Amino acid sequence: MPITPEQQAEIDEARAQTHQTLRATAPGMEKHLYKAHEVLDHGFVRVIDYMGDDAAICQAARVSYGKGTKAVSNDKGLIRYLMRHWHSTPFEMCEIKLHVKLPVFVARQWIRHRTANVNEYSARYSILDREFYIPAPEQLAAQSVINNQGRGAALEGEEAARVLDILKSDSNRAYDHYEQMISDEGQQGLARELARMNLPSNIYTQWYWKVDLHNLFHFLRLRADSHAQYEIRVYADAICRIVADWVPLAYGAFEDYRMGGVQFSSKGMDVLRRMLKGEKVTQETSGMSAGEWRELMGSLEG
Amino acid sequence: MPITPEQQAEIDEARAQTHQTLRATAPGMEKHLYKAHEVLDHGFVRVIDYMGDDAAICQAARVSYGKGTKAVSNDKGLIRYLMRHWHSTPFEMCEIKLHVKLPVFVARQWIRHRTANVNEYSARYSILDREFYIPAPEQLAAQSVINNQGRGAALEGEEAARVLDILKSDSNRAYDHYEQMISDEGQQGLARELARMNLPSNIYTQWYWKVDLHNLFHFLRLRADSHAQYEIRVYADAICRIVADWVPLAYGAFEDYRMGGVQFSSKGMDVLRRMLKGEKVTQETSGMSAGEWRELMGSLEG
Amino acid sequence: MPITPEQQAEIDEARAQTHQTLRATAPGMEKHLYKAHEVLDHGFVRVIDYMGDDAAICQAARVSYGKGTKAVSNDKGLIRYLMRHWHSTPFEMCEIKLHVKLPVFVARQWIRHRTANVNEYSARYSILDREFYIPAPEQLAAQSVINNQGRGAALEGEEAARVLDILKSDSNRAYDHYEQMISDEGQQGLARELARMNLPSNIYTQWYWKVDLHNLFHFLRLRADSHAQYEIRVYADAICRIVADWVPLAYGAFEDYRMGGVQFSSKGMDVLRRMLKGEKVTQETSGMSAGEWRELMGSLEG
Amino acid sequence: MPITPEQQAEIDEARAQTHQTLRATAPGMEKHLYKAHEVLDHGFVRVIDYMGDDAAICQAARVSYGKGTKAVSNDKGLIRYLMRHWHSTPFEMCEIKLHVKLPVFVARQWIRHRTANVNEYSARYSILDREFYIPAPEQLAAQSVINNQGRGAALEGEEAARVLDILKSDSNRAYDHYEQMISDEGQQGLARELARMNLPSNIYTQWYWKVDLHNLFHFLRLRADSHAQYEIRVYADAICRIVADWVPLAYGAFEDYRMGGVQFSSKGMDVLRRMLKGEKVTQETSGMSAGEWRELMGSLEG
Repeated sequence: MPITPEQQAEIDEARAQTHQTLRATAPGMEKHLYKAHEVLDHGFVRVIDYMGDDAAICQAARVSYGKGTKAVSNDKGLIRYLMRHWHSTPFEMCEIKLHVKLPVFVARQWIRHRTANVNEYSARYSILDREFYIPAPEQLAAQSVINNQGRGAALEGEEAARVLDILKSDSNRAYDHYEQMISDEGQQGLARELARMNLPSNIYTQWYWKVDLHNLFHFLRLRADSHAQYEIRVYADAICRIVADWVPLAYGAFEDYRMGGVQFSSKGMDVLRRMLKGEKVTQETSGMSAGEWRELMGSLEG
Repeated sequence: MPITPEQQAEIDEARAQTHQTLRATAPGMEKHLYKAHEVLDHGFVRVIDYMGDDAAICQAARVSYGKGTKAVSNDKGLIRYLMRHWHSTPFEMCEIKLHVKLPVFVARQWIRHRTANVNEYSARYSILDREFYIPAPEQLAAQSVINNQGRGAALEGEEAARVLDILKSDSNRAYDHYEQMISDEGQQGLARELARMNLPSNIYTQWYWKVDLHNLFHFLRLRADSHAQYEIRVYADAICRIVADWVPLAYGAFEDYRMGGVQFSSKGMDVLRRMLKGEKVTQETSGMSAGEWRELMGSLEG
Repeated sequence: MPITPEQQAEIDEARAQTHQTLRATAPGMEKHLYKAHEVLDHGFVRVIDYMGDDAAICQAARVSYGKGTKAVSNDKGLIRYLMRHWHSTPFEMCEIKLHVKLPVFVARQWIRHRTANVNEYSARYSILDREFYIPAPEQLAAQSVINNQGRGAALEGEEAARVLDILKSDSNRAYDHYEQMISDEGQQGLARELARMNLPSNIYTQWYWKVDLHNLFHFLRLRADSHAQYEIRVYADAICRIVADWVPLAYGAFEDYRMGGVQFSSKGMDVLRRMLKGEKVTQETSGMSAGEWRELMGSLEG
Repeated sequence: MPITPEQQAEIDEARAQTHQTLRATAPGMEKHLYKAHEVLDHGFVRVIDYMGDDAAICQAARVSYGKGTKAVSNDKGLIRYLMRHWHSTPFEMCEIKLHVKLPVFVARQWIRHRTANVNEYSARYSILDREFYIPAPEQLAAQSVINNQGRGAALEGEEAARVLDILKSDSNRAYDHYEQMISDEGQQGLARELARMNLPSNIYTQWYWKVDLHNLFHFLRLRADSHAQYEIRVYADAICRIVADWVPLAYGAFEDYRMGGVQFSSKGMDVLRRMLKGEKVTQETSGMSAGEWRELMGSLEG
């Protein structure tokens, strides 16, 4: 249960205060503000603030392209044009600020996206809570035997039980020791900035994360992808649903051109053109490596 | 007259539409929204959107520093603490989007601040207007004789008249020729992307410029400084007045620690400590170069 | 003639000094160092320094992916894998520093690529030279009638002559006036930072531009593209030839996957799969807009 | 012992290969190349590559400021001028690539410096080694009682022994369990990307980190500062020594103006000027808060 009654009261209070503004407002986003969307066993994503909407993207594009955009008279067509031709700056005119609670090993992947603003809870200053990510049984996956970075089937039987037991007991022991070390009862008490090093990376942290829509789409393309690790993908999926309500036209274009899009190499295009002319092409006659050929065939099958 | 009746009507219409929102709202900023603050002879700055306020800076800082910030119980003290100790990330949690109309040579300086989002009017797609910056007589300054990058006194008499005449007539001739070259009446008409190269850099352009508060402060520190070129400084000054209404606590701290702040070198601190002990220090006994010594003495005189 | 005898002497001197180093060295790049590759009528690109080579990309990738990269045993396969799967960070491990001389209107496009380091010649401090870009006759193109941002056929006859005459005489007159205004003979002399505003944007500037290979590829993909303006494309083309000598494996992968690559949307993939099954698809049955359909058919024809 | 005989052999081999280059070479840096500078109990910093030297900073500055820099005829004076006036772009013309081995909790602080390129060892792909940071007894510090983010005196006696024992035994137990979970002997074997979550943040990771000199100085100012956590400060200190050999003039200016520099607020300058005139100023008459006054007095005492 990620949200405490205390936090829920804060959310309710924040949602009870409505303000008048002259700024652009996205009705689909107002309903999300402050609410916590639960992710994993103790995590959440919630919208703290946002700037702009679909119209703001078009407004900025029309400043840049001036009369050049008159031909594309409607917002949907314009947004799809911008997405198709990689005109990224108009999407940068929208901004979102999220409050995210997430395991440290997920945070370590996430932070690699550098073009964002972050304020993370500091374990130098403050004491972390006893909250650890313990995978659900169906997510307790074996190492993939065909892919160095992937997962295979879920563990079964005793092995699964053993792993769950290790994760739970090690987490709790580490936290017990953390508390013992920082305690100042009857002892000096270890500095927090040192004691935290004993905690495993399935402990939860939290941060405010602010990013523009272009860079958010880049994040989502990589992290909502089927090759992303499950534990970050569920955050990306939750954000996708929020963005779909915020900027429905931009999100629709993103889904079509990025999430569902496929990139063909120059060699791949040659193969494609030969196939469309009726030629029977094989890996041998394609000039492609086995890996590239497999990926190409995979995308053509869909 | 930078604002046409048509533009004023658009502004009035935008300001007539008020929305309900659950987001943080800065009353001091709402009164600026969409309004054009005139700068130079045809330029302006206007706020298109904003995210956050003084409270949002504190909210983010309290996420990071947790209980560490409880000692600093009020927002003003916390914001001053953050500014004093270069904790920049909480200020990044605020964002502003401006519409700016400015001469091209000013835009060329401005764009060097890379951490911002920009959509500029494109002269490849669209035709520029006949609007050029012509300095007011008191700004028609001579080259400084003591500073390679500065200005001296205003030009006088015939020389001033001659310069003004050159700037005006060259601008108009260049624009006449621009129009002739792109015209498709009785001729093919030169491509806009080529014809624009004939226009001098006092022509006006415009853009949407979006930046977070930390990076905006960095911009303002450099561009509202007395050493900045007058023509960009007036834009920075106009933005300073807007920011003071938006986030009064953060702006107050910025004024005290950055705009009015002085950096002493290690050597400068030695000199200072000796002076405070009553020693009479000269450049010769300071170990500083003539330039450093002059700057140090200047800052101590205030 | 972009290179003066004085500059050539400097280049020769720099190339005469050879050093011993333990760093990775790219033989294909050493032959370019300091030499000026001429671009347009007065411009050039030359390599001032570089860091890394194809092996450095693989070295960094092997740190990240550890045993995961052992399967891809050779450097060429690994680099192609990284490029295909958008693993951009290993390419960021190479860096290049260029000295570029280019017209101001080209510099204004170029600088929009923010992830680079720049030191530009300052016309506040220094006096610009009398060098202007005057297009070759075959580049004096008419505005495209089908594309707002493009060029059509070259201007012909009298119109071409008229345009050339305008560009030349306006450039020279503007420069004469620039010199007159800043002169301190018998007058105060206008500040350089003001006088420069009279100069048209076909005047040449120059800068040092330093960028990592990933961001350089992004620049090249957009600016060596057939839709880029000719005057920036020739710089991108010159850089492509340099990069091909510097990191031949990475450049080969870039050419195959980026320059020659094609992105299909989700809708486009549906169409493609139907066509491969032998179905006759038309725009009407595709669910695509006229513009998207035209682009899709264009890329399938190659 | 951070360096294995195998790694030392690699270093020796890399250092045995010398190349001819036309690039600028910094003799002080060549002696560091590839060598591992040991930090903490298992960590290191080593230089993999570099670009530029003191002369390269001046070269870039002279492009920007042209004749404006002639007055400052020598490199040392010019570099000090650039540093004093926050002209940061010439320093961005130098670049360094480091290989760093460091505990995960240090890596988490380090990565917050966003303007750098990183390739980190991936525990999704590869298996981490059994190497944990265990503080030396004199670094096993108590929580500061006056500063929420700081350390007090070293723990003593039984408490110190108890903490050391916890850190060692928890690290080893976590690693034993990590190995058990990923083992595929007689079981499926948990995916590496999941098993890593059991490891505490004193485990070592490693990365290639590439950054320009301006951003490196910013990192060093914050992390070599006495308020930085000891475990990251020792890395910053090691890098300081390397940079001092690489660009001695720039490093000297950095030490004087940044590391040893002091920033006074506008209020602080008022106090200073009154003191220099002989006035006896107290906190009460200063208009400053207790915290600001304490910091001001501290910096005046040195």
